[in-house]
Amino acid sequence: MKLLLISNSTNYGEEYLHWPKPFISDFLNKFRVKKVLFVPYAGISLSPLGLKESYDVYEKRVQEVFKSLGFEIYSIHRQSHPIRAVMEAEAIAIGGGNTFHLVYCLQKRGLMSAIREQALHGIPYLGWSAGSNVACPSLMTTNDMPIIQPSDFECMGLVPFQINPHYLDKNPEGHGGETREARIEEFIILHPRIPVVGLREASLLEVIDDKMVLKGSRAMRLFQFGNLPCEFAPGSDVSQLLKPIN
Amino acid sequence: MKLLLISNSTNYGEEYLHWPKPFISDFLNKFRVKKVLFVPYAGISLSPLGLKESYDVYEKRVQEVFKSLGFEIYSIHRQSHPIRAVMEAEAIAIGGGNTFHLVYCLQKRGLMSAIREQALHGIPYLGWSAGSNVACPSLMTTNDMPIIQPSDFECMGLVPFQINPHYLDKNPEGHGGETREARIEEFIILHPRIPVVGLREASLLEVIDDKMVLKGSRAMRLFQFGNLPCEFAPGSDVSQLLKPIN
Repeated sequence: MKLLLISNSTNYGEEYLHWPKPFISDFLNKFRVKKVLFVPYAGISLSPLGLKESYDVYEKRVQEVFKSLGFEIYSIHRQSHPIRAVMEAEAIAIGGGNTFHLVYCLQKRGLMSAIREQALHGIPYLGWSAGSNVACPSLMTTNDMPIIQPSDFECMGLVPFQINPHYLDKNPEGHGGETREARIEEFIILHPRIPVVGLREASLLEVIDDKMVLKGSRAMRLFQFGNLPCEFAPGSDVSQLLKPIN
Repeated sequence: MKLLLISNSTNYGEEYLHWPKPFISDFLNKFRVKKVLFVPYAGISLSPLGLKESYDVYEKRVQEVFKSLGFEIYSIHRQSHPIRAVMEAEAIAIGGGNTFHLVYCLQKRGLMSAIREQALHGIPYLGWSAGSNVACPSLMTTNDMPIIQPSDFECMGLVPFQINPHYLDKNPEGHGGETREARIEEFIILHPRIPVVGLREASLLEVIDDKMVLKGSRAMRLFQFGNLPCEFAPGSDVSQLLKPIN
Protein backbone atom coordinates (compact mmCIF):
# COMPACT_ATOMS: atom_id res chain seq x y z
CA MET A 1 0.00 0.00 0.00
CA LYS A 2 0.94 3.61 -0.59
CA LEU A 3 -0.71 6.03 1.81
CA LEU A 4 -0.12 9.65 2.75
CA LEU A 5 -2.28 10.40 5.80
CA ILE A 6 -2.13 14.10 6.59
CA SER A 7 -3.42 15.63 9.83
CA ASN A 8 -4.59 18.96 8.42
CA SER A 9 -4.67 20.90 5.19
CA THR A 10 -3.70 24.25 6.56
CA ASN A 11 -1.76 25.58 9.52
CA TYR A 12 -3.19 28.63 11.24
CA GLY A 13 -2.38 31.77 9.28
CA GLU A 14 -0.91 29.93 6.27
CA GLU A 15 -2.20 29.48 2.73
CA TYR A 16 -4.42 26.53 1.86
CA LEU A 17 -2.51 23.21 1.73
CA HIS A 18 0.76 25.10 2.08
CA TRP A 19 2.72 23.02 4.59
CA PRO A 20 2.13 19.53 3.10
CA LYS A 21 3.13 20.59 -0.46
CA PRO A 22 6.66 19.07 -0.47
CA PHE A 23 5.33 15.82 1.05
CA ILE A 24 2.52 15.52 -1.48
CA SER A 25 4.91 16.27 -4.32
CA ASP A 26 7.50 13.77 -3.11
CA PHE A 27 4.85 11.06 -2.53
CA LEU A 28 3.18 11.37 -5.94
CA ASN A 29 6.47 11.72 -7.85
CA LYS A 30 7.79 8.55 -6.23
CA PHE A 31 5.07 6.61 -8.06
CA ARG A 32 5.14 8.73 -11.23
CA VAL A 33 1.56 9.91 -10.72
CA LYS A 34 0.34 12.69 -13.01
CA LYS A 35 -3.44 12.77 -12.47
CA VAL A 36 -5.26 12.48 -9.17
CA LEU A 37 -8.95 11.69 -8.68
CA PHE A 38 -10.26 14.02 -5.97
CA VAL A 39 -13.10 13.25 -3.53
CA PRO A 40 -14.71 16.50 -2.27
CA TYR A 41 -17.67 15.12 -0.26
CA ALA A 42 -16.39 16.31 3.12
CA GLY A 43 -16.59 19.92 1.94
CA ILE A 44 -20.17 21.08 2.17
CA SER A 45 -20.07 24.75 3.13
CA LEU A 46 -17.74 26.27 0.55
CA SER A 47 -20.56 27.79 -1.49
CA PRO A 48 -23.90 29.24 -0.34
CA LEU A 49 -25.47 27.95 -3.57
CA GLY A 50 -25.57 24.26 -2.63
CA LEU A 51 -23.59 21.04 -2.33
CA LYS A 52 -22.75 20.70 -6.04
CA GLU A 53 -21.38 24.25 -6.08
CA SER A 54 -19.49 23.61 -2.84
CA TYR A 55 -17.76 20.61 -4.47
CA ASP A 56 -16.94 22.77 -7.53
CA VAL A 57 -15.29 25.39 -5.32
CA TYR A 58 -13.43 22.69 -3.41
CA GLU A 59 -12.14 21.04 -6.58
CA LYS A 60 -10.88 24.37 -7.88
CA ARG A 61 -9.10 25.21 -4.64
CA VAL A 62 -7.30 21.86 -4.57
CA GLN A 63 -6.64 21.98 -8.32
CA GLU A 64 -4.69 25.22 -7.97
CA VAL A 65 -2.40 23.80 -5.30
CA PHE A 66 -1.76 20.53 -7.13
CA LYS A 67 -1.26 22.35 -10.43
CA SER A 68 1.51 24.41 -8.85
CA LEU A 69 3.19 21.08 -8.03
CA GLY A 70 2.72 19.70 -11.54
CA PHE A 71 -0.27 17.40 -10.91
CA GLU A 72 -3.76 17.40 -12.40
CA ILE A 73 -6.80 17.15 -10.12
CA TYR A 74 -10.25 16.05 -11.37
CA SER A 75 -13.17 15.59 -9.02
CA ILE A 76 -15.34 12.52 -8.67
CA HIS A 77 -18.51 14.60 -8.31
CA ARG A 78 -18.33 15.46 -12.00
CA GLN A 79 -17.87 11.87 -13.20
CA SER A 80 -20.91 10.12 -14.64
CA HIS A 81 -19.56 6.74 -13.48
CA PRO A 82 -17.92 7.41 -10.11
CA ILE A 83 -17.05 3.77 -9.31
CA ARG A 84 -15.49 3.32 -12.72
CA ALA A 85 -13.52 6.54 -12.16
CA VAL A 86 -12.15 5.04 -8.92
CA MET A 87 -11.22 1.79 -10.68
CA GLU A 88 -9.38 3.72 -13.41
CA ALA A 89 -7.67 6.30 -11.18
CA GLU A 90 -3.87 6.63 -11.07
CA ALA A 91 -4.11 8.00 -7.53
CA ILE A 92 -6.90 9.12 -5.17
CA ALA A 93 -7.02 12.13 -2.83
CA ILE A 94 -9.74 12.66 -0.22
CA GLY A 95 -10.05 16.15 1.22
CA GLY A 96 -11.04 17.27 4.70
CA GLY A 97 -14.24 18.91 5.96
CA ASN A 98 -16.96 16.96 7.74
CA THR A 99 -16.15 13.27 8.25
CA PHE A 100 -19.78 12.24 8.82
CA HIS A 101 -20.88 13.75 5.52
CA LEU A 102 -17.90 12.20 3.75
CA VAL A 103 -18.66 8.72 5.14
CA TYR A 104 -22.37 9.13 4.36
CA CYS A 105 -21.61 9.93 0.71
CA LEU A 106 -18.92 7.27 0.27
CA GLN A 107 -21.17 4.55 1.66
CA LYS A 108 -24.28 5.67 -0.21
CA ARG A 109 -22.46 5.62 -3.54
CA GLY A 110 -20.56 2.37 -2.98
CA LEU A 111 -17.29 4.30 -3.04
CA MET A 112 -15.98 3.26 0.38
CA SER A 113 -15.36 -0.32 -0.74
CA ALA A 114 -14.24 0.67 -4.26
CA ILE A 115 -11.59 3.07 -2.97
CA ARG A 116 -10.56 0.59 -0.28
CA GLU A 117 -10.02 -2.10 -2.91
CA GLN A 118 -7.93 0.20 -5.07
CA ALA A 119 -5.76 1.32 -2.13
CA LEU A 120 -5.21 -2.33 -1.13
CA HIS A 121 -4.09 -2.98 -4.72
CA GLY A 122 -1.41 -0.31 -4.43
CA ILE A 123 -3.05 2.76 -5.95
CA PRO A 124 -1.54 5.77 -4.11
CA TYR A 125 -4.02 7.21 -1.63
CA LEU A 126 -3.72 10.53 0.09
CA GLY A 127 -6.06 12.18 2.51
CA TRP A 128 -6.09 15.07 4.89
CA SER A 129 -8.16 15.43 8.07
CA ALA A 130 -11.48 13.64 7.28
CA GLY A 131 -9.65 12.01 4.35
CA SER A 132 -7.19 10.46 6.82
CA ASN A 133 -9.97 9.42 9.20
CA VAL A 134 -11.68 7.29 6.56
CA ALA A 135 -8.48 5.28 5.95
CA CYS A 136 -8.87 4.01 9.55
CA PRO A 137 -11.09 1.14 10.75
CA SER A 138 -13.92 3.56 11.55
CA LEU A 139 -14.79 7.25 11.79
CA MET A 140 -14.82 6.99 15.57
CA THR A 141 -11.94 9.34 16.40
CA THR A 142 -12.97 12.26 14.23
CA ASN A 143 -13.38 15.66 15.87
CA ASP A 144 -16.20 16.61 13.52
CA MET A 145 -19.81 17.31 14.32
CA PRO A 146 -22.26 14.48 13.48
CA ILE A 147 -24.38 16.57 11.10
CA ILE A 148 -25.70 13.55 9.19
CA GLN A 149 -26.12 9.85 10.06
CA PRO A 150 -24.09 7.50 7.85
CA SER A 151 -25.39 3.95 7.44
CA ASP A 152 -22.34 2.69 9.33
CA PHE A 153 -19.35 4.09 11.25
CA GLU A 154 -17.10 1.53 9.54
CA CYS A 155 -14.50 2.91 7.13
CA MET A 156 -11.69 1.48 4.96
CA GLY A 157 -9.42 -0.03 7.60
CA LEU A 158 -6.31 0.49 5.45
CA VAL A 159 -4.42 0.84 8.72
CA PRO A 160 -5.38 -1.06 11.91
CA PHE A 161 -5.29 1.99 14.20
CA GLN A 162 -7.32 5.17 14.48
CA ILE A 163 -6.04 8.64 13.67
CA ASN A 164 -7.20 11.67 15.61
CA PRO A 165 -6.32 14.50 13.24
CA HIS A 166 -5.70 18.07 14.48
CA TYR A 167 -4.60 16.53 17.78
CA LEU A 168 -4.52 19.22 20.47
CA ASP A 169 -2.84 19.04 23.85
CA LYS A 170 -4.86 21.65 25.66
CA ASN A 171 -8.40 22.74 25.98
CA PRO A 172 -9.38 26.12 24.59
CA GLU A 173 -9.23 28.83 27.24
CA GLY A 174 -12.17 28.81 29.63
CA HIS A 175 -13.52 25.46 28.37
CA GLY A 176 -14.58 23.28 31.31
CA GLY A 177 -15.32 20.10 29.29
CA GLU A 178 -13.21 17.04 28.53
CA THR A 179 -9.76 17.41 26.92
CA ARG A 180 -8.98 15.66 23.63
CA GLU A 181 -6.89 13.16 25.57
CA ALA A 182 -9.86 12.38 27.83
CA ARG A 183 -12.04 11.77 24.75
CA ILE A 184 -9.49 9.42 23.21
CA GLU A 185 -9.24 7.54 26.49
CA GLU A 186 -13.00 7.01 26.39
CA PHE A 187 -12.55 5.41 22.97
CA ILE A 188 -9.74 3.18 24.24
CA ILE A 189 -11.92 1.94 27.11
CA LEU A 190 -14.53 0.69 24.66
CA HIS A 191 -12.04 -0.51 22.01
CA PRO A 192 -8.94 -1.76 23.83
CA ARG A 193 -7.46 -3.44 20.72
CA ILE A 194 -7.41 -0.31 18.58
CA PRO A 195 -4.57 2.13 19.25
CA VAL A 196 -5.14 5.83 18.53
CA VAL A 197 -2.57 8.13 16.98
CA GLY A 198 -2.97 11.76 17.99
CA LEU A 199 -1.65 13.43 14.83
CA ARG A 200 -0.81 17.06 15.54
CA GLU A 201 -1.18 19.75 12.90
CA ALA A 202 1.74 19.99 10.43
CA SER A 203 2.38 16.25 10.60
CA LEU A 204 1.50 13.15 8.58
CA LEU A 205 2.04 9.41 8.30
CA GLU A 206 3.54 8.00 5.12
CA VAL A 207 2.93 4.29 4.55
CA ILE A 208 4.82 2.44 1.81
CA ASP A 209 4.22 -1.30 1.86
CA ASP A 210 5.08 -2.46 5.39
CA LYS A 211 6.89 0.69 6.44
CA MET A 212 5.32 3.72 8.12
CA VAL A 213 7.14 6.95 8.97
CA LEU A 214 5.98 10.05 10.83
CA LYS A 215 6.79 13.15 8.77
CA GLY A 216 6.35 16.87 9.29
CA SER A 217 7.41 19.08 12.15
CA ARG A 218 5.52 17.79 15.22
CA ALA A 219 5.70 14.70 17.41
CA MET A 220 2.74 12.29 17.44
CA ARG A 221 1.07 10.96 20.59
CA LEU A 222 0.16 7.28 20.75
CA PHE A 223 -2.65 6.00 22.97
CA GLN A 224 -2.85 2.28 23.71
CA PHE A 225 -5.01 0.46 26.22
CA GLY A 226 -3.16 -0.34 29.42
CA ASN A 227 -0.19 1.93 28.62
CA LEU A 228 0.53 5.57 29.32
CA PRO A 229 0.38 7.72 26.17
CA CYS A 230 3.80 8.02 24.50
CA GLU A 231 5.39 10.40 22.03
CA PHE A 232 7.25 9.77 18.75
CA ALA A 233 9.49 12.42 17.21
CA PRO A 234 9.17 13.49 13.56
CA GLY A 235 11.10 11.06 11.37
CA SER A 236 10.28 8.07 13.61
CA ASP A 237 9.71 4.69 12.01
CA VAL A 238 6.34 3.62 13.44
CA SER A 239 5.84 0.54 11.26
CA GLN A 240 5.01 -1.59 14.30
CA LEU A 241 1.58 0.07 14.32
CA LEU A 242 0.74 -1.55 10.98
CA LYS A 243 0.41 -4.94 12.72
CA PRO A 244 -3.09 -5.46 14.15
CA ILE A 245 -3.31 -6.28 17.87
CA ASN A 246 -4.85 -9.72 18.42
CA MET B 1 -43.21 20.13 30.16
CA LYS B 2 -40.65 21.01 32.78
CA LEU B 3 -37.11 21.04 31.48
CA LEU B 4 -33.80 22.38 32.77
CA LEU B 5 -31.27 22.12 29.93
CA ILE B 6 -27.83 23.02 31.23
CA SER B 7 -24.81 23.69 29.00
CA ASN B 8 -22.13 22.30 31.29
CA SER B 9 -21.70 20.81 34.73
CA THR B 10 -18.59 22.67 35.73
CA ASN B 11 -16.92 25.96 34.87
CA TYR B 12 -13.15 25.89 34.49
CA GLY B 13 -11.49 25.91 37.91
CA GLU B 14 -14.73 25.50 39.89
CA GLU B 15 -16.08 22.58 41.89
CA TYR B 16 -18.23 19.93 40.21
CA LEU B 17 -21.75 21.18 39.40
CA HIS B 18 -21.07 24.36 41.34
CA TRP B 19 -22.50 27.09 39.12
CA PRO B 20 -25.89 25.48 38.32
CA LYS B 21 -26.71 24.68 41.98
CA PRO B 22 -29.17 27.55 42.61
CA PHE B 23 -30.93 26.87 39.31
CA ILE B 24 -31.27 23.13 40.02
CA SER B 25 -32.53 23.85 43.52
CA ASP B 26 -35.03 26.42 42.35
CA PHE B 27 -36.28 24.16 39.52
CA LEU B 28 -36.79 21.06 41.67
CA ASN B 29 -38.32 22.97 44.59
CA LYS B 30 -40.83 24.60 42.27
CA PHE B 31 -42.33 21.14 41.67
CA ARG B 32 -41.80 19.83 45.21
CA VAL B 33 -39.39 17.14 44.00
CA LYS B 34 -37.47 15.23 46.69
CA LYS B 35 -35.98 12.24 44.84
CA VAL B 36 -34.34 12.30 41.41
CA LEU B 37 -33.62 9.28 39.20
CA PHE B 38 -30.14 9.75 37.74
CA VAL B 39 -28.90 8.45 34.36
CA PRO B 40 -25.10 8.00 34.39
CA TYR B 41 -24.54 6.32 30.98
CA ALA B 42 -22.61 9.24 29.46
CA GLY B 43 -19.90 8.84 32.11
CA ILE B 44 -17.64 5.99 31.10
CA SER B 45 -14.13 6.93 32.23
CA LEU B 46 -14.59 7.80 35.90
CA SER B 47 -13.16 4.49 37.14
CA PRO B 48 -10.37 2.33 35.68
CA LEU B 49 -12.23 -0.76 36.90
CA GLY B 50 -15.01 -0.74 34.31
CA LEU B 51 -18.31 0.79 33.24
CA LYS B 52 -20.32 -0.36 36.27
CA GLU B 53 -17.73 1.15 38.61
CA SER B 54 -17.64 4.33 36.52
CA TYR B 55 -21.40 4.70 36.95
CA ASP B 56 -21.02 4.10 40.71
CA VAL B 57 -18.45 6.89 40.96
CA TYR B 58 -20.62 9.18 38.85
CA GLU B 59 -23.71 8.52 40.99
CA LYS B 60 -21.77 9.30 44.16
CA ARG B 61 -20.35 12.52 42.75
CA VAL B 62 -23.80 13.77 41.72
CA GLN B 63 -25.38 12.48 44.95
CA GLU B 64 -23.09 14.67 47.07
CA VAL B 65 -24.02 17.82 45.19
CA PHE B 66 -27.76 17.14 45.22
CA LYS B 67 -27.65 16.10 48.88
CA SER B 68 -26.16 19.48 49.76
CA LEU B 69 -29.24 21.01 48.12
CA GLY B 70 -31.67 18.71 49.97
CA PHE B 71 -32.42 16.21 47.16
CA GLU B 72 -31.86 12.48 46.96
CA ILE B 73 -30.18 10.96 43.87
CA TYR B 74 -30.50 7.26 42.95
CA SER B 75 -29.01 5.88 39.77
CA ILE B 76 -30.82 3.88 37.10
CA HIS B 77 -27.84 1.54 36.61
CA ARG B 78 -28.62 -0.06 39.99
CA GLN B 79 -32.32 -0.63 39.29
CA SER B 80 -33.39 -4.13 38.34
CA HIS B 81 -36.29 -2.72 36.29
CA PRO B 82 -34.95 0.44 34.66
CA ILE B 83 -38.03 1.22 32.56
CA ARG B 84 -40.26 0.81 35.59
CA ALA B 85 -37.92 3.10 37.53
CA VAL B 86 -38.40 5.75 34.82
CA MET B 87 -42.18 5.34 34.92
CA GLU B 88 -42.19 5.75 38.72
CA ALA B 89 -39.66 8.61 38.95
CA GLU B 90 -40.57 11.95 40.53
CA ALA B 91 -37.94 13.65 38.37
CA ILE B 92 -35.15 12.54 36.02
CA ALA B 93 -31.60 13.91 35.65
CA ILE B 94 -29.24 12.93 32.82
CA GLY B 95 -25.56 13.73 33.34
CA GLY B 96 -22.91 14.73 30.81
CA GLY B 97 -19.98 12.77 29.40
CA ASN B 98 -20.07 11.12 25.98
CA THR B 99 -23.31 11.70 24.06
CA PHE B 100 -22.79 8.76 21.68
CA HIS B 101 -22.42 6.32 24.56
CA LEU B 102 -25.42 7.84 26.32
CA VAL B 103 -27.62 7.53 23.22
CA TYR B 104 -26.36 4.00 22.57
CA CYS B 105 -27.35 2.90 26.10
CA LEU B 106 -30.68 4.74 26.16
CA GLN B 107 -31.75 3.21 22.85
CA LYS B 108 -30.50 -0.29 23.65
CA ARG B 109 -32.45 -0.37 26.91
CA GLY B 110 -35.65 1.21 25.60
CA LEU B 111 -35.07 4.19 27.87
CA MET B 112 -35.06 6.92 25.23
CA SER B 113 -38.77 6.53 24.55
CA ALA B 114 -39.65 5.84 28.21
CA ILE B 115 -37.94 9.01 29.44
CA ARG B 116 -39.38 10.99 26.53
CA GLU B 117 -42.89 9.86 27.42
CA GLN B 118 -42.44 10.82 31.08
CA ALA B 119 -41.03 14.25 30.20
CA LEU B 120 -43.96 14.85 27.83
CA HIS B 121 -46.29 13.96 30.73
CA GLY B 122 -44.75 16.69 32.87
CA ILE B 123 -42.18 14.81 34.94
CA PRO B 124 -39.37 17.35 35.62
CA TYR B 125 -36.34 16.59 33.43
CA LEU B 126 -32.91 18.04 33.89
CA GLY B 127 -29.78 17.40 31.92
CA TRP B 128 -26.35 18.87 31.47
CA SER B 129 -24.13 18.70 28.40
CA ALA B 130 -24.88 15.26 26.82
CA GLY B 131 -28.04 15.23 28.99
CA SER B 132 -29.20 18.42 27.27
CA ASN B 133 -28.27 17.11 23.82
CA VAL B 134 -30.58 14.09 24.13
CA ALA B 135 -33.59 16.35 24.85
CA CYS B 136 -33.15 17.69 21.28
CA PRO B 137 -34.43 16.09 18.05
CA SER B 138 -31.11 14.29 17.54
CA LEU B 139 -27.56 14.04 18.87
CA MET B 140 -26.31 15.89 15.79
CA THR B 141 -24.90 19.00 17.43
CA THR B 142 -22.90 17.33 20.17
CA ASN B 143 -19.19 18.13 20.42
CA ASP B 144 -18.36 14.63 21.61
CA MET B 145 -16.25 11.98 19.94
CA PRO B 146 -18.24 9.18 18.23
CA ILE B 147 -16.68 6.37 20.28
CA ILE B 148 -19.58 3.97 19.74
CA GLN B 149 -22.30 3.67 17.08
CA PRO B 150 -25.83 4.09 18.42
CA SER B 151 -28.61 2.41 16.46
CA ASP B 152 -29.97 5.84 15.55
CA PHE B 153 -28.99 9.52 15.92
CA GLU B 154 -32.62 10.34 16.85
CA CYS B 155 -33.20 11.53 20.41
CA MET B 156 -36.19 12.72 22.46
CA GLY B 157 -37.22 15.84 20.57
CA LEU B 158 -38.60 17.49 23.70
CA VAL B 159 -37.66 20.78 22.08
CA PRO B 160 -37.76 21.35 18.29
CA PHE B 161 -34.26 22.88 18.07
CA GLN B 162 -30.75 21.60 18.64
CA ILE B 163 -28.49 22.65 21.50
CA ASN B 164 -24.74 22.93 21.06
CA PRO B 165 -23.51 22.77 24.65
CA HIS B 166 -20.16 24.29 25.72
CA TYR B 167 -20.55 26.74 22.82
CA LEU B 168 -17.22 28.42 22.13
CA ASP B 169 -16.61 31.54 20.08
CA LYS B 170 -13.00 30.97 19.19
CA ASN B 171 -10.77 28.16 18.11
CA PRO B 172 -8.08 26.97 20.50
CA GLU B 173 -4.77 28.70 19.88
CA GLY B 174 -2.90 27.36 16.86
CA HIS B 175 -5.84 25.24 15.63
CA GLY B 176 -6.23 25.58 11.85
CA GLY B 177 -9.50 23.61 11.54
CA GLU B 178 -13.10 24.74 11.39
CA THR B 179 -14.54 26.93 14.17
CA ARG B 180 -17.58 25.80 16.15
CA GLU B 181 -19.66 28.31 14.22
CA ALA B 182 -18.49 26.81 10.92
CA ARG B 183 -19.51 23.32 12.14
CA ILE B 184 -22.96 24.51 13.16
CA GLU B 185 -23.37 26.19 9.78
CA GLU B 186 -22.65 22.83 8.12
CA PHE B 187 -25.51 21.36 10.17
CA ILE B 188 -27.86 24.19 9.16
CA ILE B 189 -27.09 23.63 5.47
CA LEU B 190 -28.27 20.02 5.73
CA HIS B 191 -31.15 20.73 8.15
CA PRO B 192 -32.53 24.18 7.34
CA ARG B 193 -35.67 23.73 9.47
CA ILE B 194 -33.84 23.02 12.72
CA PRO B 195 -32.40 26.04 14.53
CA VAL B 196 -29.32 25.56 16.69
CA VAL B 197 -28.78 27.24 20.06
CA GLY B 198 -25.11 27.74 20.92
CA LEU B 199 -25.35 27.48 24.72
CA ARG B 200 -22.22 28.93 26.30
CA GLU B 201 -20.81 27.55 29.54
CA ALA B 202 -22.52 28.84 32.70
CA SER B 203 -25.89 29.12 30.96
CA LEU B 204 -29.04 27.04 30.64
CA LEU B 205 -32.55 27.00 29.22
CA GLU B 206 -35.51 26.56 31.55
CA VAL B 207 -38.73 25.38 29.92
CA ILE B 208 -41.99 25.45 31.87
CA ASP B 209 -44.99 24.58 29.71
CA ASP B 210 -44.92 26.97 26.74
CA LYS B 211 -42.37 29.37 28.21
CA MET B 212 -38.61 29.15 27.81
CA VAL B 213 -36.09 31.47 29.46
CA LEU B 214 -32.30 31.72 29.11
CA LYS B 215 -30.70 31.70 32.56
CA GLY B 216 -27.14 31.95 33.85
CA SER B 217 -24.49 34.51 33.14
CA ARG B 218 -23.79 34.31 29.39
CA ALA B 219 -25.65 35.22 26.22
CA MET B 220 -26.74 32.46 23.83
CA ARG B 221 -26.12 32.47 20.09
CA LEU B 222 -28.92 31.39 17.76
CA PHE B 223 -28.24 29.94 14.31
CA GLN B 224 -31.09 29.78 11.81
CA PHE B 225 -30.97 28.98 8.12
CA GLY B 226 -31.01 32.10 5.97
CA ASN B 227 -30.34 34.48 8.89
CA LEU B 228 -27.17 35.82 10.44
CA PRO B 229 -26.51 34.33 13.88
CA CYS B 230 -28.01 36.45 16.67
CA GLU B 231 -27.46 36.84 20.39
CA PHE B 232 -29.89 36.74 23.33
CA ALA B 233 -28.94 38.17 26.72
CA PRO B 234 -29.33 36.17 29.95
CA GLY B 235 -32.91 36.47 31.19
CA SER B 236 -34.34 36.60 27.65
CA ASP B 237 -37.68 34.97 26.99
CA VAL B 238 -36.95 32.70 24.02
CA SER B 239 -40.28 30.85 24.00
CA GLN B 240 -40.67 31.44 20.25
CA LEU B 241 -38.11 28.65 19.71
CA LEU B 242 -40.53 26.11 21.17
CA LYS B 243 -42.65 26.36 18.01
CA PRO B 244 -41.43 24.00 15.26
CA ILE B 245 -40.63 25.60 11.88
CA ASN B 246 -42.86 24.21 9.12
